[in-house]
Amino acid sequence: MAKRTATRTSLKRELGYLFNPGSVAVIGASGTFGKWGFNVVGRLLKNRRRRDIYPINNKEDQILGLKAYKTVLDVPGPVDLAVMTVPLKSLPEAMEQCVQKGVKTAIVISGGLSETGEDGARVERQVIEIARRGGIRVVGPNCLGHMDTYSGICTVPFLPKVKRGEVAVVSQSGNSSQSVFNHALEMGVGVSKFVSSGNEADLQFEDYLQYLAQDRRTKVILGYVEGLRDGRRFMELAANITKEKPVVILKAGRSDAGARAARSHSAALAGSDVVLDAAFKQCGVIRVDELTELVDVAAALLGQPLPRGRRVGVLTMGGGMAVMTSDILRRSGLELPAFTEKTMGILSSMLSGRWSHGNPVDPAGDFVSYHLLWPMIEDENVDAIVMVGGVGMTSSFAGWSGLPDSMKHEVMDFRKAIEDAEVVEGVEKTKEMIHKYGKPVLFTTMVWGAAQRGKVYDRLRREHMFPYPVPEATARVLSHLVEYSEYLGIARQS
Amino acid sequence: MAKRTATRTSLKRELGYLFNPGSVAVIGASGTFGKWGFNVVGRLLKNRRRRDIYPINNKEDQILGLKAYKTVLDVPGPVDLAVMTVPLKSLPEAMEQCVQKGVKTAIVISGGLSETGEDGARVERQVIEIARRGGIRVVGPNCLGHMDTYSGICTVPFLPKVKRGEVAVVSQSGNSSQSVFNHALEMGVGVSKFVSSGNEADLQFEDYLQYLAQDRRTKVILGYVEGLRDGRRFMELAANITKEKPVVILKAGRSDAGARAARSHSAALAGSDVVLDAAFKQCGVIRVDELTELVDVAAALLGQPLPRGRRVGVLTMGGGMAVMTSDILRRSGLELPAFTEKTMGILSSMLSGRWSHGNPVDPAGDFVSYHLLWPMIEDENVDAIVMVGGVGMTSSFAGWSGLPDSMKHEVMDFRKAIEDAEVVEGVEKTKEMIHKYGKPVLFTTMVWGAAQRGKVYDRLRREHMFPYPVPEATARVLSHLVEYSEYLGIARQS
Repeated sequence: MAKRTATRTSLKRELGYLFNPGSVAVIGASGTFGKWGFNVVGRLLKNRRRRDIYPINNKEDQILGLKAYKTVLDVPGPVDLAVMTVPLKSLPEAMEQCVQKGVKTAIVISGGLSETGEDGARVERQVIEIARRGGIRVVGPNCLGHMDTYSGICTVPFLPKVKRGEVAVVSQSGNSSQSVFNHALEMGVGVSKFVSSGNEADLQFEDYLQYLAQDRRTKVILGYVEGLRDGRRFMELAANITKEKPVVILKAGRSDAGARAARSHSAALAGSDVVLDAAFKQCGVIRVDELTELVDVAAALLGQPLPRGRRVGVLTMGGGMAVMTSDILRRSGLELPAFTEKTMGILSSMLSGRWSHGNPVDPAGDFVSYHLLWPMIEDENVDAIVMVGGVGMTSSFAGWSGLPDSMKHEVMDFRKAIEDAEVVEGVEKTKEMIHKYGKPVLFTTMVWGAAQRGKVYDRLRREHMFPYPVPEATARVLSHLVEYSEYLGIARQS
Repeated sequence: MAKRTATRTSLKRELGYLFNPGSVAVIGASGTFGKWGFNVVGRLLKNRRRRDIYPINNKEDQILGLKAYKTVLDVPGPVDLAVMTVPLKSLPEAMEQCVQKGVKTAIVISGGLSETGEDGARVERQVIEIARRGGIRVVGPNCLGHMDTYSGICTVPFLPKVKRGEVAVVSQSGNSSQSVFNHALEMGVGVSKFVSSGNEADLQFEDYLQYLAQDRRTKVILGYVEGLRDGRRFMELAANITKEKPVVILKAGRSDAGARAARSHSAALAGSDVVLDAAFKQCGVIRVDELTELVDVAAALLGQPLPRGRRVGVLTMGGGMAVMTSDILRRSGLELPAFTEKTMGILSSMLSGRWSHGNPVDPAGDFVSYHLLWPMIEDENVDAIVMVGGVGMTSSFAGWSGLPDSMKHEVMDFRKAIEDAEVVEGVEKTKEMIHKYGKPVLFTTMVWGAAQRGKVYDRLRREHMFPYPVPEATARVLSHLVEYSEYLGIARQS
């Protein structure tokens, strides 16, 4: 198969048709709920006023209230994007018609191709050859679709709510991205573009990476990868991109069983893991192990400055958290330095004599307060702060139902005052300090689910400072920030 | 100090006064909101009808609507439990008065004792000597209180909501337990008893363990430990208890920084970590690393049978999850066996030709269904099942707002049908299969927060089958179940 290396400008134009098409044909559209050809049209209807939608079906005249066409050749206007959900055997003819029509890009949702063996691979090659002859760029096959939150296109039928934002996601797994979006919504992280890249028979992970590097809506690129087709090109690209824009990748298929599963999934050959680790490190790619971690790192990259070293000041709500957090930070290769005498003096003046008198700070019974963070941020021995507990504290006021009514009001007022103070001092003032001193402050809430609601959480979410649920997550994120910062030469090498 | 070894019967009586006292005096009670002596009385008021509450304060006549007494000696009736929040210097005299009064047990909330150095340690020894002379058992000092959800007592002022249930929590960190309770509520895990054991100057972790072993409300014991005072006794106890009742412990203070923080927190000397690991293993204690993990393991122990081996069948919603889950299970020392021919035949008849044709099962585009679990449970090569994705799927129907009205109803009906099927087939029928074959099925939802709502989640929560949020958590839990099962001789040794 002839290799095709896109230039920057042609890629920009070609993928422009993908992410913001003026018209979309759904080849294999269906009026029967549950069929993929129904699902795609159903999803496209959400923003139907932003572009023409043409259902293609050789039996129906109308699908979901839209005029249907027998073939893509019958569509009156031009077609920028064709989404193909037809069975394997109809694919070559459908692609042939797209070429005749002058379609610009195609998403082949249909599976059963190279990921299933040689027969499928033959059809895949045939379809891609037809597309290339006609200058059509192809996403997939065996993929789940794509999305652009700015142009308002989404060809993925089943997705949780997605907020518009600055993070692009390229995934060799369609379904896994659902989890990414779900966690992103929780953490307040918005998405610019998404593509499920499938078997990557034409457009490859590297193409999307190159395109997203120059996309001004995208500040962070996240990737789920099972295998890279063009390792050398990836490394050259990544080395350039990561200087300006962080690239965070989950490479799956580390284990024997995982690599086996990857072959039948995306037809990817998972390369040696050790080689990949070294390669990623060399070109500044942040490698993570879990889907949640992709989002956790992205949130910090958007909301926090990069630390200038690995010395962490820790503020906790209690002694147990101080002990556990110390363990966890050390395990992640981070350091807990002694504070300067000046900081010790200030903290001692703010706390009762029982406090831990050192790093980590355990107020030992006193309410933890954001005020304590500020001298810690100013401390010259400290590059970053981790705060554990004490965020959205008002959730722990359950069980005070026996109070006399008069007192209930006092407690309610107190709750409200805490909440207001958290928003103003905790979020606003701390954010100011973070950027003034260039030191990230990562929160850890230690609460889950329903308790993560309310004014403080909303505000933190908006600032990309939403607290991580457990100190393990916080430590992992911080250690990625430090490594990336060392790579960029911002942090001292350790 | 004379060593005191409680017999089983005396401990049962003594801690009976702690967990279900007929009367409680709060020494250091206050009418000023925000003081600890206010907080404790405020919290006790919730169940004020279940026992007499006596605020002790030498200046006030009334506190929070209750008659106050100058000293505990002025209380008219007997006092089973004294909660002490007075400053360090007043402690010896207050304890002296408790002895004169014939108080049965005392919780010393006050800190500033042995955890702060020799001066505090001297006062601590003095107070404990006074208590012992009068036969008073002491919780703490430097602790956060306790709770019994059946007798309805709670002396911990700030706590998230806690459901009544079968898990007891003993914690050398008060605040950390808040996170445990928060996660427990999320996971549907209820609590029987809780005690924050503080410096353990009298009652030690081992005493609570011994007491809880015979508590019929408690089916699983969770512990947060920084250091054990009596390692030999702990091991003898644990070896006996774990034969009947699982004991899950988070031992904190592994690292240099963590051990340092533990000394100033609970005055605990963190022993050698390697020795402890071996000791825990030898006596069947399940050792975990994170607070959430304590609860995650407890949920599985309550809702699932112990597996008879480490061979795991995996069902996923998509290929990416199959790859990642394989990696993660292998990393946790679990195995992914081949299915029997019979199972392969059944699965092939249920799925399209595109499915992964092996373990892990990836339906490759088909909707994942609980039906697929059942032949996997029946497979003789499989000891346990992990399902990833496909739980509470209706959350992914966001973004279908453009459908014609008639179709909207059809989609709504479909959503409802999926939900109903999930409850009946997913939860009820699968639960039946789990217990029939004695094979645990652990769910993983891959969704978070608000999306974990609805009928299916509620039902799973009630059955202690609430899905873990990420496959890492599931794998960790399953590997603990396998190890405990091997210890008990239920699983084949690997």
